[in-house]
Amino acid sequence: MTKLKFTKMHGLGNDFMVIDGINQKFNPSTAPIAAWAQRHTGVGFDQLLLIEAPRQAEADFRYRIFNADGSEVEQCGNGARCFARFVYDKGLSSKKQIVVETAGGVIMPRLNDDGLVTVDMGVPLLAPEQIPFAAIDEEDARSISHQLVIGNETVSVTCINMGNPHAVIVVEDIEQAPVHRLGAAIENHKQFPQRVNVGFMQIVASRRIRLRVFERGVGETQACGTGACAAVVAGISLGLLGDDEPVEVNLPGGQLLISWQQQPDAHVWMTGPTQSVFDGEIDYL
Amino acid sequence: MTKLKFTKMHGLGNDFMVIDGINQKFNPSTAPIAAWAQRHTGVGFDQLLLIEAPRQAEADFRYRIFNADGSEVEQCGNGARCFARFVYDKGLSSKKQIVVETAGGVIMPRLNDDGLVTVDMGVPLLAPEQIPFAAIDEEDARSISHQLVIGNETVSVTCINMGNPHAVIVVEDIEQAPVHRLGAAIENHKQFPQRVNVGFMQIVASRRIRLRVFERGVGETQACGTGACAAVVAGISLGLLGDDEPVEVNLPGGQLLISWQQQPDAHVWMTGPTQSVFDGEIDYL
Repeated sequence: MTKLKFTKMHGLGNDFMVIDGINQKFNPSTAPIAAWAQRHTGVGFDQLLLIEAPRQAEADFRYRIFNADGSEVEQCGNGARCFARFVYDKGLSSKKQIVVETAGGVIMPRLNDDGLVTVDMGVPLLAPEQIPFAAIDEEDARSISHQLVIGNETVSVTCINMGNPHAVIVVEDIEQAPVHRLGAAIENHKQFPQRVNVGFMQIVASRRIRLRVFERGVGETQACGTGACAAVVAGISLGLLGDDEPVEVNLPGGQLLISWQQQPDAHVWMTGPTQSVFDGEIDYL
Repeated sequence: MTKLKFTKMHGLGNDFMVIDGINQKFNPSTAPIAAWAQRHTGVGFDQLLLIEAPRQAEADFRYRIFNADGSEVEQCGNGARCFARFVYDKGLSSKKQIVVETAGGVIMPRLNDDGLVTVDMGVPLLAPEQIPFAAIDEEDARSISHQLVIGNETVSVTCINMGNPHAVIVVEDIEQAPVHRLGAAIENHKQFPQRVNVGFMQIVASRRIRLRVFERGVGETQACGTGACAAVVAGISLGLLGDDEPVEVNLPGGQLLISWQQQPDAHVWMTGPTQSVFDGEIDYL
């Protein structure tokens, strides 16, 4: 039995067990990860983030992400911010912008002078088949201001894929929005074959929104990173938000800044906080 | 900012942040405890256990317990086991039985040779007014085999106070027991003015039971220590269990051994496991 060092971190409440797999030997396997993920009998986390040496010469690190059930996944925006903060704080890199290999491609998170971290969230996809969104007829095949029929109601949704599918609704008052009722109805609407995350966005100013997200398979969450990106892309596409400066997204769990230049292949950039909570040491065979 | 060391432990899934307040300076206050209790943004725990130097010469330690909201409480059986294990494992004491001051009186947890820990759970109270249980008439004023009327049903319950009120029901098959339906109905029954925890006990043998507990204000839990004590006291009082040797209580979260000699003022003793999960270090002002 040896001891494995780790750091518990979170980004807007999305929490992580972060392991330096360069300076200590760690071979990820399902059973210990799933046991450590348990909140009462383990460490407790949403995802485990593992730092490994890069396999390509041009990268600084390899970044691997494991869900609480031990399965490896491709992407986690809140995790990428914590990853960048961790390698800098722990002295694994003195660079403020690092090149990182992930299962979903190369990312380049940047640690800003104010302590916030900026990560590339990729290119938003808006074509119906990319959401995926099943149009009823040709007239119906549009992602922006689509009139979705739900029982006796018609709701205007704008659909974006940010690595996962989102439907964004503009509301007058975020406090009064029927997040649970409409969220559940739209999540499971027959026109979304892979179901959908549902965002409720209140436009506060041309560079400021309030947002609540009903996450697919989960329900309302405190802070959805891809949901913040989708909402800003939707707001800019609808002409309700400017694309000249970052848009401030106020979620129940905290604030993110989202940038997107409205042009083909423009990437979405997300800037947000990270927090180290404690350092730990756990038995590992 | 200094660093505060702690150990995360659990007893059958009831989890604790344990702090040595003898060898490091820690002055408990509500705000940091409530922040650390948060499972996504803090350490995450049900209770914080604090070891302090005793105030009386005859005691080895003072043991203080704080709930996740930062309020100080009197008793926690699973916590007392972890406390005893911690002081021995960390070398704060070389004794296997320690004398501990708590807000609820002196306790003497004992570390057994097999690694399990035995703690005194106090004297069970059976008088209706001690539960408290509001009898409808004099005929009705008994705690053992009380016929409780719930709508069209009559359920035989045995009521015990183990520091908190319990109603125990004997069932044929624990898997099929209507724990949620009857648990909620009995918890809020008008004859329990402080509401009640509801235990469903299957007698497997004269020294072995299976138990599921619907906890007051919580719902079904994995392992309720006082519920295990109440069930065994009920089973012995009903003549269904022997009192000559410990009774094995099998809960969804694991096993406890409960001893009680059926006589006035006999204490209930609970023996069970403890688990250290990891050691941590957190910033503390």
